[in-house]
Amino acid sequence: MKDENEIRGLVAKWHRAAAAGDLETILGLMAEDVVFLHAGQPPMRGKAAFAEGTRAALEKFRIESSGDVQEVRTSGDLAYCWTELRVSMIPRDGGTGTRRAGPALTLLRKARDGKWVVSRDANMLAEV
Amino acid sequence: MKDENEIRGLVAKWHRAAAAGDLETILGLMAEDVVFLHAGQPPMRGKAAFAEGTRAALEKFRIESSGDVQEVRTSGDLAYCWTELRVSMIPRDGGTGTRRAGPALTLLRKARDGKWVVSRDANMLAEV
Repeated sequence: MKDENEIRGLVAKWHRAAAAGDLETILGLMAEDVVFLHAGQPPMRGKAAFAEGTRAALEKFRIESSGDVQEVRTSGDLAYCWTELRVSMIPRDGGTGTRRAGPALTLLRKARDGKWVVSRDANMLAEV
Repeated sequence: MKDENEIRGLVAKWHRAAAAGDLETILGLMAEDVVFLHAGQPPMRGKAAFAEGTRAALEKFRIESSGDVQEVRTSGDLAYCWTELRVSMIPRDGGTGTRRAGPALTLLRKARDGKWVVSRDANMLAEV
């Protein structure tokens, strides 16, 4: 249960940090060689690519997100978490925002210091 | 390497069975409680739901698929496989087909008999 609780805590921390626009905290939750997968886009490889894209988004948008964790499983130093997500992107200049929802299947790895970090993420959000 | 080779073999077998319209072989590669995740759709839960949907599709379409396995990792009885897929659905009545491509992130579990089976699948195919 300890590993599962840590991973649920990581997911909650990610949402709080996104809402606060706290990119540094989000970056601390992922592996250097993280890969983000999404339909219609090439794989986004590495923490630096994520930081660049997210920094640009956070300048324009406020993010409100929440997730219902459906399942967490661990085996040794590998784990996965299936979450049903809702993400609103609210323009800071007051324009119309977008709302997306759908599942994410996230893989995590236990780092050498015993901390779980996101290593691969399959994002299946669609506009609602 | 043995586990990784078995999982790569499973992926290749899946593509061959899909091309042959051999649903029974595909069903033998997944867990009873398998879940398929896709943007814009509710989770498809269980082998029976997959069988029903795929049987209907195979009546209308011939499937040509291929996949480049990007990565396979295992830890104990849990594994994942990231594949870049291409899937063509060719109508058996001769109409225009569809071509989709994109990543899939598939989780596998080692069953009691030591055989790997698909347990969760994140499908991020988009029309091309």
